Amino acid sequence: MYTLIEQDGCAKSGELKTVHGTIQTPVFMNVGTVAAIKGAVSTVDLNKIGTQVQLSNTYHLHVRPGDQLIKKMGGLHRFMVWDKPILTDSGGFQVFSLAKLRTIKEEGVYFNSHIDGRKIFMGPEESMQIQSNLASTIAMAFDECPPHPADRAYIQTSVDRTTRWLVRCKNEMDRLNSLSDTINKKQMLFGINQGGTYADIRIEHAKVISDMDLDGYAIGGLAVGESHEDMYHIIEETTPYLPLNKPVYLMGVGTPANILEAVERGVDFFDCVYPSRNGRHGHAYTNHGKMNLLNAKYELDDRPIEEGCACLACQTYSRAYIRHLLKAKEMLGMRLLVLHNLYFYNNMMEEIREAIRSKQYKQYKKQKLEGFLRGE
Amino acid sequence: MYTLIEQDGCAKSGELKTVHGTIQTPVFMNVGTVAAIKGAVSTVDLNKIGTQVQLSNTYHLHVRPGDQLIKKMGGLHRFMVWDKPILTDSGGFQVFSLAKLRTIKEEGVYFNSHIDGRKIFMGPEESMQIQSNLASTIAMAFDECPPHPADRAYIQTSVDRTTRWLVRCKNEMDRLNSLSDTINKKQMLFGINQGGTYADIRIEHAKVISDMDLDGYAIGGLAVGESHEDMYHIIEETTPYLPLNKPVYLMGVGTPANILEAVERGVDFFDCVYPSRNGRHGHAYTNHGKMNLLNAKYELDDRPIEEGCACLACQTYSRAYIRHLLKAKEMLGMRLLVLHNLYFYNNMMEEIREAIRSKQYKQYKKQKLEGFLRGE
Repeated sequence: MYTLIEQDGCAKSGELKTVHGTIQTPVFMNVGTVAAIKGAVSTVDLNKIGTQVQLSNTYHLHVRPGDQLIKKMGGLHRFMVWDKPILTDSGGFQVFSLAKLRTIKEEGVYFNSHIDGRKIFMGPEESMQIQSNLASTIAMAFDECPPHPADRAYIQTSVDRTTRWLVRCKNEMDRLNSLSDTINKKQMLFGINQGGTYADIRIEHAKVISDMDLDGYAIGGLAVGESHEDMYHIIEETTPYLPLNKPVYLMGVGTPANILEAVERGVDFFDCVYPSRNGRHGHAYTNHGKMNLLNAKYELDDRPIEEGCACLACQTYSRAYIRHLLKAKEMLGMRLLVLHNLYFYNNMMEEIREAIRSKQYKQYKKQKLEGFLRGE
Repeated sequence: MYTLIEQDGCAKSGELKTVHGTIQTPVFMNVGTVAAIKGAVSTVDLNKIGTQVQLSNTYHLHVRPGDQLIKKMGGLHRFMVWDKPILTDSGGFQVFSLAKLRTIKEEGVYFNSHIDGRKIFMGPEESMQIQSNLASTIAMAFDECPPHPADRAYIQTSVDRTTRWLVRCKNEMDRLNSLSDTINKKQMLFGINQGGTYADIRIEHAKVISDMDLDGYAIGGLAVGESHEDMYHIIEETTPYLPLNKPVYLMGVGTPANILEAVERGVDFFDCVYPSRNGRHGHAYTNHGKMNLLNAKYELDDRPIEEGCACLACQTYSRAYIRHLLKAKEMLGMRLLVLHNLYFYNNMMEEIREAIRSKQYKQYKKQKLEGFLRGE
């Protein structure tokens, strides 16, 4: 149940009540692909950073350790020891980006596992069943995520099929939520808007899925190679046709600047691998832009990554030490940077919520973006 | 300054007062080779586990990031943010095991760096200078660590040279500790007993170095391929000839059982890579022996690694989850096992101290060894 708390221009801030607690939005969902944040970060760490939501990948967990195993272990929350909300994706994106030899049919997708090559079929019903086994707080609808660029005719065909799949997802989720051995009988379902960079297809699709009264709506199929301007334009065109009294989730986005722009256009859920992936590669997000800790200029730098940052890395260790760890390929260096980056993202979302709720979002965003560009 | 607190048979428990605090013995020193514990474990974690001493490797730090850099950063304590004692080895062991194309001369050892192949010379004075730059609490004498097996004539020649090197180490350490720009002017020096598996050479050498009134004495050159029986025999023969009022350190040893046996023979300092290395490979030390978490039987095992263990891993996560992390090659799995293993080792040392101080060591050791053999 989503409640809109404040709007500042098109930016919105709300709260989503779930069976695993309330999520304040805008929110960043921390990506734990296989039920763990990459970079040796645990759910104990996530709690300390003050994160609200964790996101796991259905396709990965289905392949290993298997959703049946996780169901036997009491669901994903119990398995990874996390009592706050978890969103699972549908598996669709990974099927379209990772799996080999795939064939799309009306019933779903046939493909080979990227781990052991075994043949798998996944359609809307299978995706819902797997996510029900995982017992996440929020399940995502099974959609087709077409490549970019794709021609108009293909996108239209694909979006129409995605709509038919969405109806099947909703029916299957309703059925699963009514079964006695389902772990989370209040599992929510978010629909996904598609349409590539064709604004009119996006809008038409947004209208159709909005009528289905789902728990939330995502904008999918962006950040797949189009320009930032195209992405912002599509968000801007689409959000007015998604319900204001439902959360809007921009899938797989993005940089801090991307998030600031998307919030201004009405998005309130985000997820992205950048903080953990870039952390593992030696990059730190700061209010003065992204730093490459491998740079020789940090060799003797006694300062924390960011002065005033409350994360474990900044509260304890110097740039020089973290740089040394990265150069020596010590896991600890990656862990410290991932902790910092996750703190940075989650803390920025808190600032964003405060800015919207005090009607100062435009000014906040301007200052923040200027800081990113200014550098140290 | 070492004070013997209690003896139970040959087992001894004491305390070593250092400029970085007091060490209660017997103690396990946690190996942070390049100023970090492998497995993404930080000094913050070490403090939480309740560890007393950290050990770093002089050779590794000399090669990268360089002891001059660490001196500029205020020494190893400040660099890695650890205010308790640190022991540094002499670099000798790594020179003899890792470096390429080495030549041993009276003045020291010429060798090529294992990182970039550059030519390095290290003798007693250089080792002391590097360790003084690192500003560790305890420096180890520069010795030759001969391979096993080695013939008697070679061992005798080598031990004699090690004795001459020890005199040079002591003189150089005294000089360095008197310099105004030395960070730790109270750096301690431990001498190292050598002699391979020749008890008479070991004893003769122990007598000679004991006369030098050093801050502590190590037994080196064991756990290099000889049998456990040979190792225990040599310890037993040697410790009576080392001063009772000085700490005795058995270098690079070992399994929990090795430690229990060596404590009984009068050893009070230990270090070993097993807890972190085996943790990274999926092995957990428990009171019921070593577990391989990769074993399929743990797939659905909801229990902690060890019931009643107070470490972060056991307090929070199941065997099934940790096994999944290891299978998925998630760093978090390694971190959790390393945290558990370090806790196990450090906690066992605390039990050992209590057992000696209450004169129940024999009984404690017997029960502990029986538990290891019993299994779950």
